[in-house]
Amino acid sequence: MGNCNFNFRKLNILIIGMGLIGSSIAMACREAGCSFINGTDVDSSVLEKLKETKTINEGYLTADEALKDADLTIICLYPSDAAIFLREHKSLFKKGSVVTDVSGVKADLIKTVKELGAIDFSFVGGHPMAGKEVGGYKNAEAGLFKGANFIITPFESSTPESILIVESMANIIGCTSVRYLSPQEHDLTIAFTSQLAHVIAVAMCQNSLDYNIDGFTGGSFKDLTRVAEINENLWGGVLNTNSENICKVIDSFKNKLDDIKYIIMKKDSSINDYLCETKNIKRGF
Amino acid sequence: MGNCNFNFRKLNILIIGMGLIGSSIAMACREAGCSFINGTDVDSSVLEKLKETKTINEGYLTADEALKDADLTIICLYPSDAAIFLREHKSLFKKGSVVTDVSGVKADLIKTVKELGAIDFSFVGGHPMAGKEVGGYKNAEAGLFKGANFIITPFESSTPESILIVESMANIIGCTSVRYLSPQEHDLTIAFTSQLAHVIAVAMCQNSLDYNIDGFTGGSFKDLTRVAEINENLWGGVLNTNSENICKVIDSFKNKLDDIKYIIMKKDSSINDYLCETKNIKRGF
Repeated sequence: MGNCNFNFRKLNILIIGMGLIGSSIAMACREAGCSFINGTDVDSSVLEKLKETKTINEGYLTADEALKDADLTIICLYPSDAAIFLREHKSLFKKGSVVTDVSGVKADLIKTVKELGAIDFSFVGGHPMAGKEVGGYKNAEAGLFKGANFIITPFESSTPESILIVESMANIIGCTSVRYLSPQEHDLTIAFTSQLAHVIAVAMCQNSLDYNIDGFTGGSFKDLTRVAEINENLWGGVLNTNSENICKVIDSFKNKLDDIKYIIMKKDSSINDYLCETKNIKRGF
Repeated sequence: MGNCNFNFRKLNILIIGMGLIGSSIAMACREAGCSFINGTDVDSSVLEKLKETKTINEGYLTADEALKDADLTIICLYPSDAAIFLREHKSLFKKGSVVTDVSGVKADLIKTVKELGAIDFSFVGGHPMAGKEVGGYKNAEAGLFKGANFIITPFESSTPESILIVESMANIIGCTSVRYLSPQEHDLTIAFTSQLAHVIAVAMCQNSLDYNIDGFTGGSFKDLTRVAEINENLWGGVLNTNSENICKVIDSFKNKLDDIKYIIMKKDSSINDYLCETKNIKRGF
């Protein structure tokens, strides 16, 4: 590549890991008219199915062979596996190619990339903010990212061209907002907007054991606990990797709960004012 | 009435307050074939609209006249207004009739009922666990309670017949689970399942001011904050009235957040086990 005159649909795309996100990206790219989409997975039957449905052109059990032709490699593995993958394949990526990922924690992965030393590909982190409570290619769909937010987290070694290619990918798969954050800003922001929401859902489910809730819940409880139907291996890794930021946002959130406690202990109209103010914040989202 | 041989559809029903809940109950009762549904509201244009659509038979600006014929009076006012209504109308209810309400806090209202002294109607609290972020008769619908949980909170003076009538009402309007709790148990349980969920949504919105979240949210944040679009007068009253229980559940919830904090600070597989356990709790709901 080397300049901005690229046609995304003609790129040789390689997706590492055909789970929910990897397969959904493949489907969305295919639907958008991309010509060359290859995939790797440890499960050959998954690759067979995706070939049968013409979601991917070729499937590989290991990436070694496929990497040398890939203009864009999208790593769709758990955060810690993404780091391992980069370390193990660092010399196999096509020269001048672009490598991105989809993980919900970034700073740690960038640390890994920096530790690789001299590399002849450009890495740019990506985070499509979409998912499901159920994983695997069977639950994948081309429309998963429609209307979703996408965050790009370039670092000092990401080339302008590679950033442009990842932005094209975000648009191609259906994301309607593409924003930029440094890996560090990303990890703090997402600790609040996404990981805290999951922590809260988990805490609520655990707390429900202290009460008799059967038959006594409404829509608010159901919505709040939805994401507690969690992939423990994926999210265990995410929470551990971003542990410091999450502890920080938990403490900040606990302070807000205390604010409300002190307001309702007054038993006057202060709470009405506070709720009205909150409604306006909510409407501003 | 006086015995169990009643036909709910033939009861003279009076609904006090034709907001979202009152109007939805009227619509659901009408759809279920109830013959006599009257309503009161401070807004005569609301009553006119509901008469035009044949949702109610008659509309009244004050309840005084209508109460003397009502077999079942359903008070659909804010919690504190429900207490005022009972005090102001205590001698106007039809002898032997049933009076219920729909509010999310119960113990305080039962205290009011007890303070009324000798009454010749039977009061039974009711709580349909359904609602919307938007209020008023314009947002009302017959299907609002379809599949919802309904809680009946009898106290020592509630007659068996009156409890049966409120249970019939719950079924007629479409609730699929009817459970019983004492007013005190209700207020603690609901502080957790409903009011805490609202407090969390509110705290999350307020906390969002400390971060740059625009473009960085996903489905989990959206679902969690949904109910922060709140009717501040209704919910201000609910939170103030149930203040002690809510403070209790907030503290208990904060402890669960701390549990998670300490687990992820360890950065080992303990969090995976905890998330797996949580998923199983969630699946048990």
